[in-house]
Parts: sequence; C-alpha cells; structure tokens
Amino acid sequence: MDDFIFGTLATPELRLQHTLEILSAVTHRQNRAPLDPLPGESVTIRLSAGPEQPASRAWVYFTTDGSDPAGERGTPQNGYALEMTPVASEWNTALWGYLRHFHAEIPPQPAGTLVRYRLSSADKTREVWADGGAYYAFFVENDPAPDWTRDAILYQIFADRFFAESPLFPQTEAAPSHKSNGTLRGILQKLDYIQSLGANCLWLTPVFPSPSYHGYDATDFYEINPRLGSKEDFKELLNAVHARGMRLLMDFVPNHWSNRHPHFVEAQTEPQSPARQWYTFEEWPHKYKTFFGVKTLPQINLRHAPARQHVLDAARYWLDFGVDGFRVDYSIGPSPDFYAAFRQTTRLANPQSWTFGEAVDPPDSQITFAGGMDGSLDFMLLEALRQAFAFGKWKAAQLAAFLDRHEAYFPAGFSRPSFLDNHDMNRFLWAAGNDKRKLRLAALCQFTLPGAPIIYYGTEVGLSQQRDIRQNGRALHEEARLPMIWGAAQDADLLAYYQNLCRIRTEHPNLARTPRKTLLADGNLLVYQSAELITALNLGDSPAQLPSPLRRLLLQTDPACALEGDKLLLSPFGGVTGL
Amino acid sequence: MDDFIFGTLATPELRLQHTLEILSAVTHRQNRAPLDPLPGESVTIRLSAGPEQPASRAWVYFTTDGSDPAGERGTPQNGYALEMTPVASEWNTALWGYLRHFHAEIPPQPAGTLVRYRLSSADKTREVWADGGAYYAFFVENDPAPDWTRDAILYQIFADRFFAESPLFPQTEAAPSHKSNGTLRGILQKLDYIQSLGANCLWLTPVFPSPSYHGYDATDFYEINPRLGSKEDFKELLNAVHARGMRLLMDFVPNHWSNRHPHFVEAQTEPQSPARQWYTFEEWPHKYKTFFGVKTLPQINLRHAPARQHVLDAARYWLDFGVDGFRVDYSIGPSPDFYAAFRQTTRLANPQSWTFGEAVDPPDSQITFAGGMDGSLDFMLLEALRQAFAFGKWKAAQLAAFLDRHEAYFPAGFSRPSFLDNHDMNRFLWAAGNDKRKLRLAALCQFTLPGAPIIYYGTEVGLSQQRDIRQNGRALHEEARLPMIWGAAQDADLLAYYQNLCRIRTEHPNLARTPRKTLLADGNLLVYQSAELITALNLGDSPAQLPSPLRRLLLQTDPACALEGDKLLLSPFGGVTGL
Repeated sequence: MDDFIFGTLATPELRLQHTLEILSAVTHRQNRAPLDPLPGESVTIRLSAGPEQPASRAWVYFTTDGSDPAGERGTPQNGYALEMTPVASEWNTALWGYLRHFHAEIPPQPAGTLVRYRLSSADKTREVWADGGAYYAFFVENDPAPDWTRDAILYQIFADRFFAESPLFPQTEAAPSHKSNGTLRGILQKLDYIQSLGANCLWLTPVFPSPSYHGYDATDFYEINPRLGSKEDFKELLNAVHARGMRLLMDFVPNHWSNRHPHFVEAQTEPQSPARQWYTFEEWPHKYKTFFGVKTLPQINLRHAPARQHVLDAARYWLDFGVDGFRVDYSIGPSPDFYAAFRQTTRLANPQSWTFGEAVDPPDSQITFAGGMDGSLDFMLLEALRQAFAFGKWKAAQLAAFLDRHEAYFPAGFSRPSFLDNHDMNRFLWAAGNDKRKLRLAALCQFTLPGAPIIYYGTEVGLSQQRDIRQNGRALHEEARLPMIWGAAQDADLLAYYQNLCRIRTEHPNLARTPRKTLLADGNLLVYQSAELITALNLGDSPAQLPSPLRRLLLQTDPACALEGDKLLLSPFGGVTGL
Repeated sequence: MDDFIFGTLATPELRLQHTLEILSAVTHRQNRAPLDPLPGESVTIRLSAGPEQPASRAWVYFTTDGSDPAGERGTPQNGYALEMTPVASEWNTALWGYLRHFHAEIPPQPAGTLVRYRLSSADKTREVWADGGAYYAFFVENDPAPDWTRDAILYQIFADRFFAESPLFPQTEAAPSHKSNGTLRGILQKLDYIQSLGANCLWLTPVFPSPSYHGYDATDFYEINPRLGSKEDFKELLNAVHARGMRLLMDFVPNHWSNRHPHFVEAQTEPQSPARQWYTFEEWPHKYKTFFGVKTLPQINLRHAPARQHVLDAARYWLDFGVDGFRVDYSIGPSPDFYAAFRQTTRLANPQSWTFGEAVDPPDSQITFAGGMDGSLDFMLLEALRQAFAFGKWKAAQLAAFLDRHEAYFPAGFSRPSFLDNHDMNRFLWAAGNDKRKLRLAALCQFTLPGAPIIYYGTEVGLSQQRDIRQNGRALHEEARLPMIWGAAQDADLLAYYQNLCRIRTEHPNLARTPRKTLLADGNLLVYQSAELITALNLGDSPAQLPSPLRRLLLQTDPACALEGDKLLLSPFGGVTGL
C-alpha cells in the first residue's frame, strides 16, 4: 500500500533523470531574487548552463511594456538586453563536467510594471534559450496575500457529489463515473452544515459548463453548468457565503478545456479560422498539444495574446462577479509568464483575492509560483503526512526534520494550503486502512501547522471508498469522489472532533503567523510548539507516556489521551494539543 | 580505445553514486572560504546535511594549539565549539528531500596558527560527525606558491628507467617489471640533455629504499635506494641541478609504505610494540588498512601523532637536504588535516619549496588541497587533452568550454601542473595510435596553457610502448615505463620541436601569469590568446584555413602550417603559435 502522487516523478529513476536533465540544460526556472519584487527593488536573475551548453556569454532580454521580449546575441529586438556576468564555475561529478553560472540585475521598476523576460547563453556558434525558450515574467507590486487567507479553513466541495434536494441526490443506482446530481442550490442548503463545522472558505471544483461530471473540461469559461444551476443560483450562493463572513474560491483551469468547446470545434473544422492559433496543432486538425495526451483536453496556447486575454478576462469576470479567488488547476501547464499577467489581473479586479496553484511537483517547482500567485497547494506536506500517519512509514524524527526544512524553504508569506487527500488520490481514511485514529492524529497535526487547512468534503464524517483508485493500472478517480454522506451515515464523533479542530484553529490565529518549533522527535513521539499551542503526537501503535510538555489539554484525539500529574499519556495513534 | 584514468569514478554509475552519497551525508569536504586564509581573515565554514541526517543544530569544534578538537553537542572538550547557523534549506529532487545548510565563522587568527577542526550536526537523539569523522585543518600564513613555480617546466624521470653508464642500462633482456638499472649518477650525466631540452625542474619518482623497481613502497623515508646510488650521489645530483639554475622535486608517499619496512615488520610481529598504533589493524596482525587493498602497502595512520611526526620530519629532512619540493603521491589518502601540518613543515623548512598533490579525482576534490599544498596535478585537464587530441572525441567547442570553466574554477594562485601522460597510464603517443602529429598538437596546447607543463621522460623523443597497459583486466603499468631511449633511437625532429616549446614557454613567462582567452572554437578549430601569444589548433584530420588571427608565427607543428597573406593554413592535426 503506497501512494503514487507525483506521477511523472514517481520513481527514483524518474527523479534522477529529471535532476540530471535540469543540470545539463541552459536553465533559469525562475531562479531570481526576490521572486516577488517590490516597487524599487532590483531583481537578480540567475542562469545555469550545463557542461555541454554554450556559455561564453549570456543575456537577459526583457520588456516593461507588456510585449514579448525578443532579440539575438545581446541585441534586443524590443525592450532591453542585459549581458549576464559569469559568477561561478561549479564542478558536477554526476555530469562529469562544469556548470557555468551567470547572473544579472534587472533594475528597479515602478509599481504596476509587468516585466517580461527570456534568457539565453551562447558561444561563437550558437545561442541557446533557457528552459527550451520559456518566457518568464514578474509583476512589480507590493501585494502580499491578503491577511484573511491566513485564517482560512477551506472546505473542498466536489460540486456534483455534495448535495441536492431535487432531483434525487445521490443517484445511488448510477455508476461512480455518472453524475450524482449535486447542485449549487444543494451547497447553499448545506451552508449551515459547513459553517457549523467551522470552515470559512469554500473551494468548489469547476462549475463551468462541461460534458463531464467533474468539470475539468469546460466548454465555456464564462457560464455556469446548467446541471449545477444557473448564474443566479451561483450569485445567490456567493451572497449567502459572504453574508456568513465566509469566502468562496473557484477551481480555475487555464491550461486546457474540452475539445467540445465551440472555439476548439471551430479551430478543428474551419481551416481559415484564427481560432487555430489558440492551440498548438502539430498537424492540423488531429494532432495538437493536450493535457497529458488526452485528446479531449486540448491545451490552450497562452503565449498567443488573444487566447491569454480570453482566459485572463474570465478570471476578472468571476472576481467581478464576486468570487474570492482561485485554486488554479494544473498550474505547471501554462507558460511561466502567464502568472505575472494573472497576478496583475486578479489583484486589479480584487486586491483581496486569493490565488494558489495545483502543482503536483516538488518544492523547487512550487516556489516558482511566488509572485504570480499567493502560493501553491502543499503536495510535499501531503506526502509527508500520509507517509507518517496513513502508512506509518516515517518515524517522528523524519517527520520533524521534514517539517523543519520544509517550513524554512518557503518565504513566510507564501500560502501553502495543507491537505490530507483530494479528489485525485485515495482518501486518507481509506489509505489508513479506515483506521480513524490515524485520521484524527493526522488532522491534529495538519490543523496545528502554519498552512491553511483544507478539508476534503466527507473526510470530517468518515467518508471512505470501496476500492483503490488504481485498478488494473488505470486510475479510477471516482472512487475518491463518492457522494457526500448525510444524516445517520455520518460519524458524529468524528464530526465533533473536526469541529473542535476548526474551533481551535479559529481561536488561535497565530498558528498561521508564528514559526512552528520542534520540541521533541524521538521514536514515535513528536512534540512541537506552534504559537501558544503545544502539540504532542504518538505515531506508534503502542501507548506512550512522557513528562508533560503542556499544562492544559485543549483537544485530544481520544479520551485515553490524558494528563496525569506531570505525565502526558498518549494512546496508540493518539495526540493532544493544549497550552 | 579509451582511458580509465579515474578508477573509482570511471563510469557514469560510479559518478552518480558518489554524488548521491555526498549529498546524502553530513558533509563539509573543506567547503570553507577562504580555503587558504591569511592572518587576520575570518574563515567561513560550511556544512550540509542530507535529508535523513539529523540537523536541528550543528557545530564546529576547533583548536588553535595543535591538539585534536573534541567535544559533544556543542561542549568542547578542548579548544572551542561554535554553533553553526542554519542558512538554507535546499530541495533536492534526486534524493527527494531537503538538504540543510549551515555555516559558521572561525574568527581571525594570527600568522603561524594551525587551526584544527571537526564538524557535527545533531538532533535531540544523535550527533553525527561530518564526513565520517574526518579531521580538518588550515594553516594561517601569507605563503603563496613561490614565483619560480610559475616558470617551471617539469621533466618527470622514472629513476630506474632513465639512464646509467654502468651497470648496463637498460637491461634489455629483463622483463619490464624487472629493474632496468637506472641510477642517480645516470641522471646526473644526462643533465645536459635535460637542460638543452629546456626543462628546468626535475621530478624524480621515489628514490627511497624499496623492494620494487618503482619505489612507491619505501622501507625507509630517510635513505636513498642503494640500487639508485648513495646519499652522496643524490647530493651531487642536487648540487649540479642547482648549479644550472634548475630545481628538483622528490616523489613523496605519506600514505603508505612497504610491508617490509622494519617499522611495520615490528608492528606485525611484536604484540606489545607501540609501532602497532602507526597502522590501522582491523585484526592484528594480518588485517590492516592498506592502499587499495594491496597487502604489501600498509597505510600509515597519520592521525597518530608520532606517525605523523615521522612523516613530516622526513619531508623536512629532504628539504633541509636541498630538494625544492614534493610531488605528493596519492594525496587523497592521508586525513585532510595532515596537509595543514605538511604546509607548516614544508614552508618553515624552505619558504621557496613547491608542493603539489597527485589526486586522481575530480576538481572539487583537487581544490581542497588549496592551502595544504600549492596545488594539484591537473588530471581533469589531462583527460580533456587526451579526449580532444589523442582520441579525437572532443570538438573545439567542447575543449574551449572545458578550458574556460576549468580555469575559472580554480583560484589564480593554485598550481595545476599539466601533463599528457604519466607512469600510470598509456603514453599519450601510444594512445594516439603513435601519430606524432597529435602529440605535437597536444603539446602545443599544453605549453600555451597557464599550468606548468610536465614532460614525461621520453615523450619528447617519441618513446612509446608495445601494448595497452590493460591486459586481461590487469594493469601492466610497466608498459608505460619502458627504458628511456637514447642516441639514434630518439626522434630528433620531435626533440627539436619540444626544445622550441620549452624555449617559447621560457621566453613568454606571462603564459603562466595571464588568463587565457578563447577567441574561436568552431568545428575543429580552436584559437585562443594567452598573454601575448595567439595559438591556433586544428583538431581535425583535414587541412583548414582561416583569416589569420596572428601576424607572425613563432612555432608550427609542421612546415605545412603557414601564413599566406591574410590567411592561416593549418595542416591536419596542425597548429601554430605566434604573435
């Protein structure tokens, strides 16, 4: 039993190959400082050239007027070109050669500037563009993530699978890949439930028109899926959410849409249509770039200005409509320069909006979204929490070392929403052999870490699944997207526990504002301090006791966890938090 | 046909494994700045801990009184302990985890201080010593390599194989692994020859008593092998060398000696002898640390003070005797802290002495000898020159990129003696299929690069070999150590060419003092400027012509290389240097 979360980097061989490919290339990968510059700050841009790359000279070509930077051998076609300075020659034994490092300083820019740039290195005979010709950009503004995002407790709703009064929800006779009839009005009716749980920010999986039950293949970025409801229903939901002091995030998919999108249909059927340029046809009309080779999901060419503008306008449209931000699906898909424009658009439309990406990628990729979005879903933490708590593969020292280093790696202002599971993997509870002790313990850890916690609908009431999402080598994601359970089917104890987690998180806002500090990591015992709270976790299947690091319990995973004089007793897979 | 120079790092798999092992460990590897501190300079010490290493805290333990640093969890047992500061958390995709980086500043020290140090990192439960517990050291002094070393043209003599009048040299009926009867007086008689060649610095392979013909297994560090001559003969040779304004370097082997060394015999036969501590007996008397598992070569435990002193005293003894320095055999063998004491000893004995190591290791290992010795034999350049010129595997751009990066990597004052071959590999000429055009071209390149060139005896007159040194998986080094050829057997044209190379090097001392600059690297053509000289090389087997980058030829590899109006004509494997 294990996970396969990081698909393209699932094995040691793939990770090694990926690492060596990067080291061998002419590469930038948003290696700049600061990542998210303030007005008046100069920006150090770094480039590295592998042993067999030309690197006698290197340049940064950049523009400040929104146009694409271009040029050749240091002569800009528009904008500017900066010659980069060679700063170091670094020996690499694995590649058996030298990397050559360059840097350059892009001068300070006024607020509101969109700096677009590309990099190259060259010798006398050839010029090689960094990262295969990638376009980069940053948006100069003093625009940190709004403060409310630190207090967010997110609740992820799979729109089709949550609730409806009519027609019947769920369609129990339907196969999991069929529609379950969840609606926006159904969500509206359950806002009391969500609020009483203690979550304060909804994230809805895509609500755009789409042929599928999941909606990640939109046919219109500006409409609501009639199956889920009307635009008025959505407005009513939004108003109700806001009336409760809550927020709502949409799931936004800038990278691709459905091949049934009328615009793509036009591109595929009308040879003369300008729509063709919105996609990357390798051979018109049937060979084109897609999301992971899925023909029904043509990739949008966001380097093409009208296509980019269409997508940005959609983001602005929904922010104007009233949503509070976006979870951006497959955020590593779009060209890196897309995100500076995305930042400019979203912050202009609503300075209080929140955006974060879904990049199923290691931290050195996650961090590159700094400045373009407020942050990135914390997939690395997800893996750590599942290894430690669901699979029991990590001892306390390994988890503590991971947390210490992980938290030191990211800028303090970078949003890293935390989660135990989502709609693309086995539910945590199922992965943990349906052992709710493990879920409670993992959730206690999750809720006492700095990142804003996400609850995947149903996790709080014991929703599990029937079988592994991997069957005969295929992923059956529907297994992790079963209809929400309601009424007596819910685990009321677990729900009460989750309500306590949310309450504690809400009552201790500094959990998200103070660096966590490991106090003890030994064997199965992990103890740490976050803000004023001390949390003690027993990762093992035997009871444990220790000199108590706290004086008063605020929450325990089960009643057998207790303070006894100077001692703290922890049941198997038990934990506490307190003062 | 290829080389196997870097034995333990011969394959991509070994290189990768080596790299990952280092990244995974708690490691320092002399990562300090400056490597060779001046009096009054503070020294930044760096440590890196792999993903699974404890790294909540880290310390540098150091002493300034010559004693071994020791301590525990930041409490020094003697000397001092500095807590290191965590400076960065670095994600590594290949290891799928974070490296943790620390640094600390050792405060400035007065001239003549020997700073010895160790490092560790720890969490609550364990403390791990960096690099398996290695001891490091640096010697604080303003003591750059003496200026004469920049003008050195070295001539490597395999003592047994060079010359003798009597008894008969060579013993032509002897097998190559038998002695050839070369002597010190034989060398003395050929000083005219060496001086007329233009070399000004002799490096003799070991001349200590030894059971073998090669001498790398000494039985006494303070005597001369009677087979080669007497101490008086050696003194006479030294005097004659110095009288000609030349220098002489000894081959010094601090790492091991012969198992027939009386001291080791005592250690192996007398259970109570203190001599036992000079070696590392894993199981007395027959299991002990050796040079690469060779039982006849027990490793000397230089961490044991009396053993270290014995070896250092030998170095001082021969400097007092009059030699000008040492080529240090297998320099990666001794503990890293040995070299600070070695530096202190050698510079005190003779401030004008020159020391460099033989480390068959990549540049990141070579550079660690900075401060302990003046430099390191340039094995990486050796590989590059053989790949480009002997095997024809590198085009000009690859060679130029290597040279640019390689020269940028090392501190300007670091000695990197250059060579095309030595006694442990196939001779260059043989590796090049006995094509003397390739040898001439490679030597032209070698002599116009910054490093002091070494001529391996016989290379200058066409000495080659009979067969590959690798036969049936065994290395038969003798093939590359055939007796020197004299008289009519010598290639007089090649000798004259080498004389010209030496003359040009001597007439242009700035070759060793000015950064080289690549002017052209395209296809088979490499052109660069070193000091006032411009060198143009044709790596291909077709004639080439180019707009001449120079006005006057000073030397061409063959007469077909010529200036014709504004054009420079280069024959196949031809090259020129000039102004």
